[in-house]
Amino acid sequence: MSRNILLLPGDGIGPEIVAEAERVLARVNDRFSLGLNFEQALVGGAALDACDTPLPEDTLAKARQADAILLGAVGGPKWDALPMAKRPEKGLLGLRSSLELFANLRPAILYPQLASASSLKPDVVSGLDILIVRELTGGIYFGQPRGVRHLENGERQGYNTYAYTESEIRRIGRVAFEAARQRNGKLCSVDKANVLEVTVLWREVMEDLTREYPDVALSHMYVDNAAMQLVRAPKQFDVIVTGNMFGDILSDEAAMLTGSIGMLPSASLNSQKQGMYEPCHGSAPDIAGQGIANPLATILSAAMMLRYSLGEEEAANAIEAAVSQVLDQGLRTADILSEGTRKVSTREMGEAVLAAL
Amino acid sequence: MSRNILLLPGDGIGPEIVAEAERVLARVNDRFSLGLNFEQALVGGAALDACDTPLPEDTLAKARQADAILLGAVGGPKWDALPMAKRPEKGLLGLRSSLELFANLRPAILYPQLASASSLKPDVVSGLDILIVRELTGGIYFGQPRGVRHLENGERQGYNTYAYTESEIRRIGRVAFEAARQRNGKLCSVDKANVLEVTVLWREVMEDLTREYPDVALSHMYVDNAAMQLVRAPKQFDVIVTGNMFGDILSDEAAMLTGSIGMLPSASLNSQKQGMYEPCHGSAPDIAGQGIANPLATILSAAMMLRYSLGEEEAANAIEAAVSQVLDQGLRTADILSEGTRKVSTREMGEAVLAAL
Ligand SMILES: CC(C)[C@H](C(=O)O)[C@@H](O)C(=O)O
Ligand SMILES: CC(C)[C@H](C(=O)O)[C@@H](O)C(=O)O
Repeated sequence: MSRNILLLPGDGIGPEIVAEAERVLARVNDRFSLGLNFEQALVGGAALDACDTPLPEDTLAKARQADAILLGAVGGPKWDALPMAKRPEKGLLGLRSSLELFANLRPAILYPQLASASSLKPDVVSGLDILIVRELTGGIYFGQPRGVRHLENGERQGYNTYAYTESEIRRIGRVAFEAARQRNGKLCSVDKANVLEVTVLWREVMEDLTREYPDVALSHMYVDNAAMQLVRAPKQFDVIVTGNMFGDILSDEAAMLTGSIGMLPSASLNSQKQGMYEPCHGSAPDIAGQGIANPLATILSAAMMLRYSLGEEEAANAIEAAVSQVLDQGLRTADILSEGTRKVSTREMGEAVLAAL
Repeated sequence: MSRNILLLPGDGIGPEIVAEAERVLARVNDRFSLGLNFEQALVGGAALDACDTPLPEDTLAKARQADAILLGAVGGPKWDALPMAKRPEKGLLGLRSSLELFANLRPAILYPQLASASSLKPDVVSGLDILIVRELTGGIYFGQPRGVRHLENGERQGYNTYAYTESEIRRIGRVAFEAARQRNGKLCSVDKANVLEVTVLWREVMEDLTREYPDVALSHMYVDNAAMQLVRAPKQFDVIVTGNMFGDILSDEAAMLTGSIGMLPSASLNSQKQGMYEPCHGSAPDIAGQGIANPLATILSAAMMLRYSLGEEEAANAIEAAVSQVLDQGLRTADILSEGTRKVSTREMGEAVLAAL
């Protein structure tokens, strides 16, 4: 059996951190005889520079054939002034949409070894383990019509459309209910049903699904309250499910509760479990090329890939155990450095994970 | 000179907290000879129960004639199952829109006496003083078209429209630049310009305004990053300006950083400085009628009203000083109680503020 893994280093710190994750994947590939083949392609700003498009045909073709994709990050100030269609982000959004990667899983987990990195009080976040399930191919990110038009009075108006169909809501709902079932059986659906019609439908479909999942306790929360509750008492949550835009905001907020966003992986899956895996942090252009970025979120994304898309639980566990071990050894990249720990480079951190494997 | 103040107690704890603020206003009215006249009207669930509409004609007429409005809160589970047009929230949204109260000012201030209430580490939030300027009469809250439709394939689709014109952006921008000018000269505009066209226009108009306000340092931040930065290092912000939906989410998140949302007032102003003032917390139906709610956010909203709509700075300062004094005395309602302080009721807290005046 052979499986194709597509590596998309992307921009900023992307190439540095993907290189370390690739070495880790190559190691478990040998050790567990996984039959992985690696390919690389361009996306984002890197693709813009080389091919004048953020998502070249070749990249998309390779992505469709891949069993799983590991992405670094896209974007940076260099491309910020480009028109919308020519932005690095369009490469990422195009991949999500073309491969129908509608289910974005974003765990926010506090590593006990890094507890002090959080800006929250220890008792508020210790043991934190939330999963945010974000819809990724619909909502206001992709809604039509959209654009900027000239009104009759001569001024311009910008507009976007926030839309969801019942089936789009149902399929992300099922992913979230399944996840809750495998965790602590609690699901909180986040909407703004007191103001937005689209989320009234969202709430109704989520409520309907309780008939399929009577063992899961569903609750509903308005997005403004959810943003507050994540700060006040984040451990009240088990699984959160929400739309694309609210999920973008809340998953970043939740990630930051841990104080170590450099540690958090994510998975974006379609209905065939084909998936794109990426760290939650961005391309960090300010530290790109310096060899100091934290590769662990990308390495942990590789572990998620083995688990969700390739069914290689044992190899995934091995990587996660190795990461935990290097943390126990007191090795830290600059972003998670604290008193009494040892600062290492991106490469040294990768080496340490390899050694622990 | 006589000025009309409209009191809208609303739902839940609204009547209890507005009653205390009214007593405080009556006292400063006498002491500073302000010439205030008070009227009351129904809004939200209270209006639904009495008149079958969340915003009766009589209320709207009184609101138009008032120099300023003090609102408690609207909403509660009793009315949650009603169709969108018959929800208490529509009363609030109708007032905002009818009076064109486009500028929502939401300070997030940490009272030194309440520092321990925050779920964040003391050094992260001590001295916190942010002002969030939220656009309140446009964006996705009011965009057309909106609703739930049947698609050709038989399933339903919910949809809302997120739209802003240049002039809508410019007028809220000016309010924010003015506020920044009177504070520390730093303004952060929050958008999602890497994905949403409407916020590309937003960013462009904000950028344009720097020509009118060369003394203010404008920066831009994506909303997901802003949600993170508020948790990581909230003191980096001075004034934040953003649209209706992002403002709803971020202002609640920012408020919760203080740990004492029962202390935070807000103002919603139109271009004639007519304003509606309300606490940032909601109607708290779970504790309504028990006489234990914190009236201080409403009392501080009354102070904001004196300052922004009535130009009575001295009376506003007197109220704020009185509130600070009762906190120094160690008096606390249940929501802000901590070791070594004394628990008081809503009424007792009101009495204490009166005594301190
Ligand atoms: C880069 C950007 C388009 C993207 C998003 O908004 O989805 C990012 O913030 C994310 O969350 O993956
Ligand atoms: C009650 C609700 C409609 C309202 C809003 O979303 O604007 C509230 O959350 C607020 O922030 O004032």
